[in-house]
Amino acid sequence: MTQPLHIVALCGSLRQHSYNGMLMHTALQALGPAVQHEVLPWADVPPFNADVLDAQGQPPSVQRLRERIRAADGVLLVTPEYNYALPGMLKNTLDWISRGADQPFAGKPVALLSATTGPLGGARVQNEARRVMLFLNALVLQKPEVYVGMAASKFDAEGRCTDEVTRGFVAAQMEAFQRWVRDVQRMQGGQ
Amino acid sequence: MTQPLHIVALCGSLRQHSYNGMLMHTALQALGPAVQHEVLPWADVPPFNADVLDAQGQPPSVQRLRERIRAADGVLLVTPEYNYALPGMLKNTLDWISRGADQPFAGKPVALLSATTGPLGGARVQNEARRVMLFLNALVLQKPEVYVGMAASKFDAEGRCTDEVTRGFVAAQMEAFQRWVRDVQRMQGGQ
Amino acid sequence: MTQPLHIVALCGSLRQHSYNGMLMHTALQALGPAVQHEVLPWADVPPFNADVLDAQGQPPSVQRLRERIRAADGVLLVTPEYNYALPGMLKNTLDWISRGADQPFAGKPVALLSATTGPLGGARVQNEARRVMLFLNALVLQKPEVYVGMAASKFDAEGRCTDEVTRGFVAAQMEAFQRWVRDVQRMQGGQ
Amino acid sequence: MTQPLHIVALCGSLRQHSYNGMLMHTALQALGPAVQHEVLPWADVPPFNADVLDAQGQPPSVQRLRERIRAADGVLLVTPEYNYALPGMLKNTLDWISRGADQPFAGKPVALLSATTGPLGGARVQNEARRVMLFLNALVLQKPEVYVGMAASKFDAEGRCTDEVTRGFVAAQMEAFQRWVRDVQRMQGGQ
Repeated sequence: MTQPLHIVALCGSLRQHSYNGMLMHTALQALGPAVQHEVLPWADVPPFNADVLDAQGQPPSVQRLRERIRAADGVLLVTPEYNYALPGMLKNTLDWISRGADQPFAGKPVALLSATTGPLGGARVQNEARRVMLFLNALVLQKPEVYVGMAASKFDAEGRCTDEVTRGFVAAQMEAFQRWVRDVQRMQGGQ
Repeated sequence: MTQPLHIVALCGSLRQHSYNGMLMHTALQALGPAVQHEVLPWADVPPFNADVLDAQGQPPSVQRLRERIRAADGVLLVTPEYNYALPGMLKNTLDWISRGADQPFAGKPVALLSATTGPLGGARVQNEARRVMLFLNALVLQKPEVYVGMAASKFDAEGRCTDEVTRGFVAAQMEAFQRWVRDVQRMQGGQ
Repeated sequence: MTQPLHIVALCGSLRQHSYNGMLMHTALQALGPAVQHEVLPWADVPPFNADVLDAQGQPPSVQRLRERIRAADGVLLVTPEYNYALPGMLKNTLDWISRGADQPFAGKPVALLSATTGPLGGARVQNEARRVMLFLNALVLQKPEVYVGMAASKFDAEGRCTDEVTRGFVAAQMEAFQRWVRDVQRMQGGQ
Repeated sequence: MTQPLHIVALCGSLRQHSYNGMLMHTALQALGPAVQHEVLPWADVPPFNADVLDAQGQPPSVQRLRERIRAADGVLLVTPEYNYALPGMLKNTLDWISRGADQPFAGKPVALLSATTGPLGGARVQNEARRVMLFLNALVLQKPEVYVGMAASKFDAEGRCTDEVTRGFVAAQMEAFQRWVRDVQRMQGGQ
């Protein structure tokens, strides 16, 4: 018998009712009740400054994130695109997490999703997120990719995804992600 | 007679003695005494949150940056590469500045420089910075590009650039940048 | 009185009835009768091989392209996205054109358009095309950007663009491009 | 007992004595005698044209490449950077190979290497190659990455790599690649 998976999620937007938060919850629901999940808060992560790191080490908020990611079977990264790139504050959180030899994304299965109010759905930000994850040596799921354009028309006032096509894509990705997590575990177990 | 140029500079690193800070000062010196320059501080810019923007507008630190950029003839962006991408906090500052129809980077001449302790010199972060600047409709100088790899061997304890080849590249870029600023002014004056 | 502009166009697809060919013609029509235009054929450009270049110089097909680009006031680059990147054969043509100190894209105004049958409209290929054009020191128009997704639903059997929103974007871009060409000419004339 | 691995290699340069060819052979040697290897020729691949594909199917040269890649345990892609991007003709070969539901790169372990005569070593072309391989759903080895800058100083007249640091990086990557190939096989065997 396999252990239930434990998946943690990071949402790139700090606003309370963001489309990316809605998309994240849509994905977490799609994982089904057999998968444990947890949304990781990161609003309290301070500005990264290498002098601060050298003098004081990782702040407690970052230590907690690092522990939660290390303990997880996989990570969902769900992010808007700001100025054709990652939101600065999400990147700042990743900059902190990345420091140190015990960097927790290494070898960790990751799935990427993005939602935008424009039509392009985050093609550019996912490209950048993959490059950051390459540096961190995370194992990002490749297919299917989920780009949710025109997000304002695809969620209702309660934040539920009302677009069947989007729900289908997200469900297919979460199914593939669970397989990917199991595959990576088998692969790493064999090393 | 032309007015002296006024150039402002943003350094992507918050640490006190960063190689990118040294590179920025090398570039500002290369502009010569006929050019006024100003380093823009941004350590006090808070985390971008669209809810905060909607409720309270731009914070004073961002308003000041926007005014200084708007008033300037050109902007130097000098940045390290964190995890193959822009430092999160610099990007957060750009995310704030970008909001609003009166976005100050539009039509503004910009020069990019990057320094890294590894050999690649920031090829990836400049690619991303150009994409962000495209979104903001800034007019980024194209050539010569300045990538300073192996930075630890190219500055002394006082932060002076001791590598002649690097100084030559920076001087050539700053000369091209001044021409670019004048060119863009003539171009915009004619519209 | 100003001379009529002369614009040349390269289409990234070699197929006879490509959506990008249709988009290219939509753009050329939008330039209006006061602008001369010319579609540059490149199907006969041989594979780039530096040994061949060293031994025989540029082939005649490439020499003709280089002359037409050099003589033009601006270049339209209209391209599909193959595997998230430039079509190999279009890139091969650019690889040939790029060789030699007298590279004709340097300082040349360029406008980018892309059409895809999927929804993302070529966000990735334009990113790459801008990077290539940066290397060549071309002056690519920044805004408005034109990404035509779901192209199969936007052109009729005669290749006419039937989507009013798309036609509006293309017309706005071509208007901006003509201003950009005149701006660059004024800028370069003043150097 | 495990079967000996069979690795195929594609070199992005068509010139006879290219640094990337030398780097490819350095990598193939580093695989050691227990690994079978084969350099795939692709100079005879015609220009991709979707009309030709529709009318005549894949040309024989492409069919052979597809079969060799499908039969291989892994693929080395060793490429120069032309104009900050993939060589057009290599991309043309990938464009052909990519067509059809039976696309042979899907799930295939791939290692990337690049050599350039300038200092940056191909940071941009590898970024693009990864994006193409993402589209094709190949499983590209992440670490260590191999960027060989200043290539002219690192190979002798017989094409042997004379730079110990480079040889060390290549050997480490080829060791990691063999593990990656075995890991992926175990992962795929378990599905």
